[in-house]
Amino acid sequence: MIDTIQRYVQNPLLLPEHIRPSMDGLVVECVLNPGAFRFAGKIGLLLRVAERPVQDEASVKTVVIDPAAPGGQRILAFQKDDPDLVSLEEDSRGFVYRGQPYLTTLSHLRLAWSEDGLNFRIDPTPTLLGQGELEAFGIEDCRVTEIDGTYYLTYTAVSVHGFGVGLISTTDWEHFTRHSMILPPNNKDCALFPRKIGEHYFALHRPTMEGVGRNQIWLAQSPDLLHWGQHRPLIKTRSGMWDSARVGAGDAPIWTEAGWLEIYHGADENNRYCLGALLLDPNDPSKVLARSGRPIMEPIMEYEKVGFFGSVVFTNGTVVEGDRVLMYYGASDQVVCGATLSLREILASLHTL
Amino acid sequence: MIDTIQRYVQNPLLLPEHIRPSMDGLVVECVLNPGAFRFAGKIGLLLRVAERPVQDEASVKTVVIDPAAPGGQRILAFQKDDPDLVSLEEDSRGFVYRGQPYLTTLSHLRLAWSEDGLNFRIDPTPTLLGQGELEAFGIEDCRVTEIDGTYYLTYTAVSVHGFGVGLISTTDWEHFTRHSMILPPNNKDCALFPRKIGEHYFALHRPTMEGVGRNQIWLAQSPDLLHWGQHRPLIKTRSGMWDSARVGAGDAPIWTEAGWLEIYHGADENNRYCLGALLLDPNDPSKVLARSGRPIMEPIMEYEKVGFFGSVVFTNGTVVEGDRVLMYYGASDQVVCGATLSLREILASLHTL
Repeated sequence: MIDTIQRYVQNPLLLPEHIRPSMDGLVVECVLNPGAFRFAGKIGLLLRVAERPVQDEASVKTVVIDPAAPGGQRILAFQKDDPDLVSLEEDSRGFVYRGQPYLTTLSHLRLAWSEDGLNFRIDPTPTLLGQGELEAFGIEDCRVTEIDGTYYLTYTAVSVHGFGVGLISTTDWEHFTRHSMILPPNNKDCALFPRKIGEHYFALHRPTMEGVGRNQIWLAQSPDLLHWGQHRPLIKTRSGMWDSARVGAGDAPIWTEAGWLEIYHGADENNRYCLGALLLDPNDPSKVLARSGRPIMEPIMEYEKVGFFGSVVFTNGTVVEGDRVLMYYGASDQVVCGATLSLREILASLHTL
Repeated sequence: MIDTIQRYVQNPLLLPEHIRPSMDGLVVECVLNPGAFRFAGKIGLLLRVAERPVQDEASVKTVVIDPAAPGGQRILAFQKDDPDLVSLEEDSRGFVYRGQPYLTTLSHLRLAWSEDGLNFRIDPTPTLLGQGELEAFGIEDCRVTEIDGTYYLTYTAVSVHGFGVGLISTTDWEHFTRHSMILPPNNKDCALFPRKIGEHYFALHRPTMEGVGRNQIWLAQSPDLLHWGQHRPLIKTRSGMWDSARVGAGDAPIWTEAGWLEIYHGADENNRYCLGALLLDPNDPSKVLARSGRPIMEPIMEYEKVGFFGSVVFTNGTVVEGDRVLMYYGASDQVVCGATLSLREILASLHTL
């Protein structure tokens, strides 16, 4: 099987050791799932940087957002022999203390800039930290969509209240406007269409529920990007296939003459994440015209198969150059990689529905 | 302990046997959780009517929405010895067949009218059936809020896609406009404020997640009632109290000189549902001014303690007459009851926060 996507031979492009920790006592565990965009002649990535405290033998430490602390983050330590501490054995990503869930890592968003799309200068400090009680466990997996000269950032806001979708906008990447939560928990993987269709803006999103077959991609619409309605399911998981357990949107849909092309992720019951594509009607994005049968990308390289959470390729950042798309992606939830693809080739690979 | 609410001595006001089934082969199992409103000098209730097929010994039958079937509903039968059939032992409300969940009952909404608030004429046929794939398992627990002469109905839309909040409007209770899903799954208990505050409409809602302490009342706002944003948590569950496991809004908040009064339900770990009250700032409903310490109503009567789902009092329907509020409520998820309360007395019972 040959992926329809060409990986950069330089992969992985960005590793945790390339990133300066945001405060003393923290190490960067993962750099992953960047949003991608063009600005001022450069390619920008908005990286998700996941950090954890330096651990010692006696305790489990985590880091949470705390506006009162220097740098805005605070390290918490729990004694390992504390009977109130419960590890989540099936998942390396969290634990529970006195009924309250914690993540082992805390994510912020950080900019990196490149002239050639391959070599990036990473900012030495966080660009955006979680803010307020809805982001106390961090912000993750940001999509960047340029609409009429403004960049809209949709990201996962994580806290004890669950995870929902937050919105931030900027025009200069120095000043940011926070617009509050646009989709209540549990929801993630929100990708805005880059322009209105008819009278409304549109978005893909992923309500997240317990139970088989529930984690599907939905469509919503909005008059103003701030308030959303007309929620309806768009595509389902497919039993027995690579996207049998959950599906979620990638970056903003890409306009083509055939319709809106969306590269999405699908996972199976083994939590193996692949990428596929969807084609949506150009005038009515609730109509799915075509969909990948086989994945367009599978985790086959060593850096995609082994890492913080292995067997994962996950994209939420693309930059379009005519027929060619630069696609940035997280591999094994630990490193950032790049690939290129041809819109024509992806469209030709889809199965018409 | 004396409830702050006075029950009607005629309770229960409406029983399943008062309701004509919507089609042959169905029995009305429960009538519960009515929305309540005034229209043309009468008090109207929009009842939730839950029906199930007449069962036989060999099969489990359920009823689903099917636009192609006569009357819009279809009865499905599963053989009890079919190995693909899985009962949900901890819950009388559903089962699973080949990985797909089904409810044992299907709910529709039906009008009932009264001159005195006590004696109701129940329509012989359903007023609103579930419609489309998001309502295939029915529609439930409708709040009715009059805003500028239009009645807005917010209800729970149930399907294999989970449960979300649908919106329907009417001005005459004969013609209804469907506005699609306004809050994506899983969400329920959506109560609209009866007028704008500043530039926006407001609503209470209840994102529903697995896990302790997560089922809280949230606030959202909207420019047009159709699209919602600015989602934020309003009140939490309280450990060790009557509302320790989940809380959800009742009917539309009631305007008082002290602020917005909301009667809400709270349940503990034993699924015992009581009612309490909240007072929200008149100009900024994200500020909680006061809250019930003890419940204002507990399931203490026989008809509240024993039924389809026992130990439940649940309201989503109130009619205000000056200081007096007529409150309709579902008891034990099976019958409709009524009570009256004094706004002044409820306000006096709250604990200032």
